[in-house]
Amino acid sequence: MQYNKVTASQIKQFQSIVGQSFVITSKEETHEYSRDYTEDLEYYPDVVVKPRTAEEVAAIVKICNDANIALTPRGAGTGLSGGALPFYAGVVLSMERFNKILEIDERNFQATVEPGVINEAFQNAVREKGLFYPPDPASKGSCFLGGNVAHASGGPRALKYGTTRDYVLNLQVVLPTGEIIWTGANTLKYSTGYNLTHLMIGSEGTLGIVTQIVLKLIPHPQHTLLMLAPFNSPEKACEAVNGIFLAGTNPSACEFVEPEGFLLSAAMTNLSFTVEEGVEAYLLIEVDGNDLDAMMKECEVISEVLYKHESGEVLFAQTADEKEYFWKLRRSIGEATKFNNTYKEEDTVVPRAELPALFRGVKEIGMRYGFRTVCYGHAGDGNLHVNILKDELTDDFWGIDIHQAIIEIFTLCKKLKGTISGEHGIGLVQKPYMHVVMPEFQLELMRNIKKAFDPKGILNPGKIF
Amino acid sequence: MQYNKVTASQIKQFQSIVGQSFVITSKEETHEYSRDYTEDLEYYPDVVVKPRTAEEVAAIVKICNDANIALTPRGAGTGLSGGALPFYAGVVLSMERFNKILEIDERNFQATVEPGVINEAFQNAVREKGLFYPPDPASKGSCFLGGNVAHASGGPRALKYGTTRDYVLNLQVVLPTGEIIWTGANTLKYSTGYNLTHLMIGSEGTLGIVTQIVLKLIPHPQHTLLMLAPFNSPEKACEAVNGIFLAGTNPSACEFVEPEGFLLSAAMTNLSFTVEEGVEAYLLIEVDGNDLDAMMKECEVISEVLYKHESGEVLFAQTADEKEYFWKLRRSIGEATKFNNTYKEEDTVVPRAELPALFRGVKEIGMRYGFRTVCYGHAGDGNLHVNILKDELTDDFWGIDIHQAIIEIFTLCKKLKGTISGEHGIGLVQKPYMHVVMPEFQLELMRNIKKAFDPKGILNPGKIF
Repeated sequence: MQYNKVTASQIKQFQSIVGQSFVITSKEETHEYSRDYTEDLEYYPDVVVKPRTAEEVAAIVKICNDANIALTPRGAGTGLSGGALPFYAGVVLSMERFNKILEIDERNFQATVEPGVINEAFQNAVREKGLFYPPDPASKGSCFLGGNVAHASGGPRALKYGTTRDYVLNLQVVLPTGEIIWTGANTLKYSTGYNLTHLMIGSEGTLGIVTQIVLKLIPHPQHTLLMLAPFNSPEKACEAVNGIFLAGTNPSACEFVEPEGFLLSAAMTNLSFTVEEGVEAYLLIEVDGNDLDAMMKECEVISEVLYKHESGEVLFAQTADEKEYFWKLRRSIGEATKFNNTYKEEDTVVPRAELPALFRGVKEIGMRYGFRTVCYGHAGDGNLHVNILKDELTDDFWGIDIHQAIIEIFTLCKKLKGTISGEHGIGLVQKPYMHVVMPEFQLELMRNIKKAFDPKGILNPGKIF
Repeated sequence: MQYNKVTASQIKQFQSIVGQSFVITSKEETHEYSRDYTEDLEYYPDVVVKPRTAEEVAAIVKICNDANIALTPRGAGTGLSGGALPFYAGVVLSMERFNKILEIDERNFQATVEPGVINEAFQNAVREKGLFYPPDPASKGSCFLGGNVAHASGGPRALKYGTTRDYVLNLQVVLPTGEIIWTGANTLKYSTGYNLTHLMIGSEGTLGIVTQIVLKLIPHPQHTLLMLAPFNSPEKACEAVNGIFLAGTNPSACEFVEPEGFLLSAAMTNLSFTVEEGVEAYLLIEVDGNDLDAMMKECEVISEVLYKHESGEVLFAQTADEKEYFWKLRRSIGEATKFNNTYKEEDTVVPRAELPALFRGVKEIGMRYGFRTVCYGHAGDGNLHVNILKDELTDDFWGIDIHQAIIEIFTLCKKLKGTISGEHGIGLVQKPYMHVVMPEFQLELMRNIKKAFDPKGILNPGKIF
């Protein structure tokens, strides 16, 4: 791919569209737009442009399309696959000024938001009206809803409530050729031609730029109960996960954590956490609902399953603060691992009952190649984040041999009927592994879909395939 | 579009692929493949071919692709938009021999089925294992799961449980160029490139031929309660629907029916049904769950809402037979309307709270143009089936003027943030109205997506756009 550099004259055009203060070009100022939360990748754009309206986005896109300039839309930059990085330089289109909740429609259990609204801010806003927006990535305190749409993000509560995909009703999108469309309707059912809404979700900003999102909401459950179960055997913990569902319960979260995950997290967040002797894994399980008696019964059934799978004593969080303590520990694991070590995070996902086989396989592969992993994640969904630690491994190993190990991990995922990303997306870092799970002509099919939207290939080039 | 007729030599090739008895060409035998449940459309294919395996499908597709022959995949032919009709003749590919449930994986709450499995047969098979497959179109006793995927079908229980889309995890698809792919993984979460699974769902057999479907299952609720509420004012009934959700209840079905719907249905099915004086609308409401006490409480809350909206006496179905009586009456309305009259069925859908405005608008438009409508459908989803009756209207009116009225109805849907099809799809009959809800360049975008899959345009041509 050949893209043109942004010229001084184009920068003036951008300034006239969005205003001078919303166009930045100095290396100093564009630095924060050269990185996201993914390992150590760094790509500088020629220019960062910060539009405020769909029409401004369309005008910028048209300039880039006409002049063959790469354009990379960016949310909060909390992605874990390098999806928001300007691989071919050009324009980074920061959506940070699209930060308004436009409407919370309590009659229809819907809201219309701009893509730069922070996930948690939106959750809190609808909570005040008794409504619930469940998708809650670990980065919910900073990530944008637009980024969540781009990566089909999940989070712990995806288990009971589904991922971002299950809450998006309709999208306003600026196409790479500058037209503005609504992808669907604000309805719970839709069978009106190809479902462009679902095609956009998870397309990582390569097909269009989302400028408005219509989201479904549900009534907010009144109570949550949270319990932590320690296991001496991680595989028993994984097996217990499936047991919980076979027993007919429906928890709102079921997270698996290796002790080192909590310890790293505790160290970074200055929270205290002690791992009892012999403990090799935890399950963090939440039950929610409106009927406390029924919820207590559900917890009892779950506890029985846990003990049957050789759990140690199950601890119940007693207060809201205790619940937040555990959730903060859980949410901070990714960041804490990064804080302490160079690592690669793989977003493996398999059918739930295959989790023990996945865990066993990952550890076996690590042993064989000589690296450590910290595993944690959304066990109830079969979605295990595998953090491979660099420790004292050589740069050569880290740069080359490690890829063969990752291919082995992903080959195992495929064998177990799973895939290479459950919720982080492909972006730059997983792109080399797409051929593990699909043939070349399937990637070519995706490239051809992209061409249907973006004939000149200007939008977020270099990603996915 | 120009397509070639099937030659004698190609028919021989088809025979050698699937066996002589599974290739039919006589007008007598192809007759049943020339129609579906849509009004009075009739299109004969040159030949009907009935493959048994994905490899046979691929071989047939390659012949058609090479020779530029139109190929229309067909499920059970219960569609309501003409989607399975061979508009350009050529080959009808009947999926009726793909009728095996390949696996019910109780550990993972999943099943793998072929597309020719009948919806209700599958529901019953998983029910025996305590599992639940909720999507239940009115035609569930005869429609194929593959057709449900093609149209993103819903049904009454979509209200609480979602449509077919929400249960499809992965699809095996034969592409129009003959390659066989799996669109995704058998996982609850997926963020691995463009979501081809969701793009296939609702694409009406224009992008590929589904040969295996992996479906999500959930535990089967143990009990249902069913109630029927009569209203003197249809608009009050529509308003009550929204009230039910604002009161925080979560019924598993909430159906709206005009009395004539039940009367036509009763006449055709030989069931007795009496409409009390003054009644102009019914709501049929189901609550399900495992805890009968909690369900009774939910019904009480719903009843209060109904009475607040001026419902007459709410009737509870007392036995399983009574429940089936009401559901049979409800399910047979479409067929009964057709049995009694020529009609056009519109599959309007709007955000739930806009239902009174939609109903009012439809009646006003009917009054102005001088036609009667029977309205019924999935009120809880805002999905109202509007059956326009021909009665004594002239053929001229029915052939020409009626289109302007339908455009008015759909324009109203769009204004209310809804669209022209919630669950029936576009096919042939709604195709002329696509421009009401989207601009030409959006249709062109869909055509370009199709080209990415089907460069020669052989698969189900003439549909959607």
